[in-house]
Amino acid sequence: MDVKDNRAARIGDVAREAGVSTATVSRALASPEQVRPELRARVRAAVAKLGYTPNAAARQLRVKRSRTVLVVTRKRWSAPFFAEVLRGLDAELSAAGYAMVLANMDSEGQDRSRQLVDMMFSGTIDGAVFLSDFVAVADGRSVFDAGLPLVSLCAAMEGTHAVLTDEDVCMERALHQLFALGHRDILYLPGPAENYNEIVRWGALARAFEAAGPGLGLTRAEGGDFSLDYGAAAARAFLASERRATAVMAVSDESAIGFLNTVQDAGIGVPDDLSVLGFDGIEFADFCRPTLSTIRQPRFELGRTGARVLLAAIDADAPPAPTRHVLHNILDLRGSTGPAPRRLETS
Amino acid sequence: MDVKDNRAARIGDVAREAGVSTATVSRALASPEQVRPELRARVRAAVAKLGYTPNAAARQLRVKRSRTVLVVTRKRWSAPFFAEVLRGLDAELSAAGYAMVLANMDSEGQDRSRQLVDMMFSGTIDGAVFLSDFVAVADGRSVFDAGLPLVSLCAAMEGTHAVLTDEDVCMERALHQLFALGHRDILYLPGPAENYNEIVRWGALARAFEAAGPGLGLTRAEGGDFSLDYGAAAARAFLASERRATAVMAVSDESAIGFLNTVQDAGIGVPDDLSVLGFDGIEFADFCRPTLSTIRQPRFELGRTGARVLLAAIDADAPPAPTRHVLHNILDLRGSTGPAPRRLETS
Repeated sequence: MDVKDNRAARIGDVAREAGVSTATVSRALASPEQVRPELRARVRAAVAKLGYTPNAAARQLRVKRSRTVLVVTRKRWSAPFFAEVLRGLDAELSAAGYAMVLANMDSEGQDRSRQLVDMMFSGTIDGAVFLSDFVAVADGRSVFDAGLPLVSLCAAMEGTHAVLTDEDVCMERALHQLFALGHRDILYLPGPAENYNEIVRWGALARAFEAAGPGLGLTRAEGGDFSLDYGAAAARAFLASERRATAVMAVSDESAIGFLNTVQDAGIGVPDDLSVLGFDGIEFADFCRPTLSTIRQPRFELGRTGARVLLAAIDADAPPAPTRHVLHNILDLRGSTGPAPRRLETS
Repeated sequence: MDVKDNRAARIGDVAREAGVSTATVSRALASPEQVRPELRARVRAAVAKLGYTPNAAARQLRVKRSRTVLVVTRKRWSAPFFAEVLRGLDAELSAAGYAMVLANMDSEGQDRSRQLVDMMFSGTIDGAVFLSDFVAVADGRSVFDAGLPLVSLCAAMEGTHAVLTDEDVCMERALHQLFALGHRDILYLPGPAENYNEIVRWGALARAFEAAGPGLGLTRAEGGDFSLDYGAAAARAFLASERRATAVMAVSDESAIGFLNTVQDAGIGVPDDLSVLGFDGIEFADFCRPTLSTIRQPRFELGRTGARVLLAAIDADAPPAPTRHVLHNILDLRGSTGPAPRRLETS
């Protein structure tokens, strides 16, 4: 049947059109998982045909589309690297008419986990992007149990669509370039030991060293948290040490910049006495003196790709099997890296 | 009446308890502005007494609390200054159990305005924070018409609670310090002419110059957009000019840093030949060489205060009259500023 005149379609009209009860329509919209797919499809078709739009809140539940995506972040979300990834996410999501809800997991207590899990089951989001490898569990339910499309961005989380970069490949490539420049002793400035990116980057570096044979030195600095302050602290520790390393590889541009400025203040020439290499390709790396050599991640594109993968999963008729997307980084060697200094042999 | 046994309260129970029709209950929850305050209060009391929680979406509408706040931003939201303000906002909101929905107004077309206005009227948010002075209007309805508590943060928007800093006072204070150091010719690197902060900062600077009397030079550089790249471009223009200025005041730390590095690359000594002063107090200002003198804004605290003011307005029984909160900046003069260089008189 067609709806008469111009009056807005009501739930009863949808029920008649679909040949089901109003209770079924209601359930199909609010809790589609409780309704057989075949009935759900009929309700959906009737809703579409009649242009049924209930009140504001109910509209959110229409064919389970809230046009809202949850973005789960960790501490570093406001760092320049993630800020640009978020810009890419936002650009793509908002072009598709989607809003972003930010859930920052800074404090990892049970309360944040419960909030996150509750949100997953609330029917108010269509999917989630994890800018971290944080899996929340509360009351025996995990973020996965809600059956929503999930994307992990910059970190691979099992059971999700993962959007990553070839950070391991680039770490190895960078090391071989430093070898080619004559560097034999490398100091590595790490991130937190349990961090996904730290594990991948350090792992690739350690393996490449292992494969390169004997006569080479790799030191992993103590601590590490990606920050400018940590880089400065690591530089002070380096200055107070034997200073065997001729090149420094940092897990992030921030730590590299903190290190770079601190050793230069102490009179060490970069790159004449020491080469410094960052990771990420943040804008400030372009405005160091000398410019910071870095592994440039496609930050904006990472965000856009994450959004596209999520939107495709939301629009899919059936949940697609987890996919994996690997974007390419660029090794950008410039001002802060150069040939290893010649050393007088100490006997 | 009391609800029997343990079965969950239904809308009919609420209607009987409040002595109104179920339609009125429904309207009181979904569109409270259409219901007389007295009836609304009775419905609210009944909802509270019976612990009425309908389905997930309807729950969002309960006494019009979605525990979600809309944060409206402009292009610069991912810049280090705003990233830290957002961290402060998020910290306070999430501690109160609120989620943040980001709406970035990057593209200012009618579509974004419509999205924003629709969101204001959707019943899915409790209030909004504007990190810009953007007033959206669509279909003759403006963001103000929804009657939600609104806070403007870092920019004053009429009809909102404003959380600001004393940027005008500090701009004048900084200028007087530069005068005291012997500087007589100042180059100012602006932001976009229509930007709220640009208007306040440039206005304060121009007035202070006017008041300081004759024999002083103030030049406003062309263009301007807060960015690192703009600072570098302004430096190239300065290098190609007569170079009368002995001190540079920038509307942002980013532009100051772009300028600082570019003039140093050209062999100009900072602060010996030229003093450079930024604005905002971002972390990277601490890791320039020399360290960047700046006007340090309480970024995290701005966000926290904005959230507190909004939450107080949301919790108020009646909409409070617009309030105004002014936080203090700190003038942090360090490495990049010093006495004006002595000049040979050119005849």
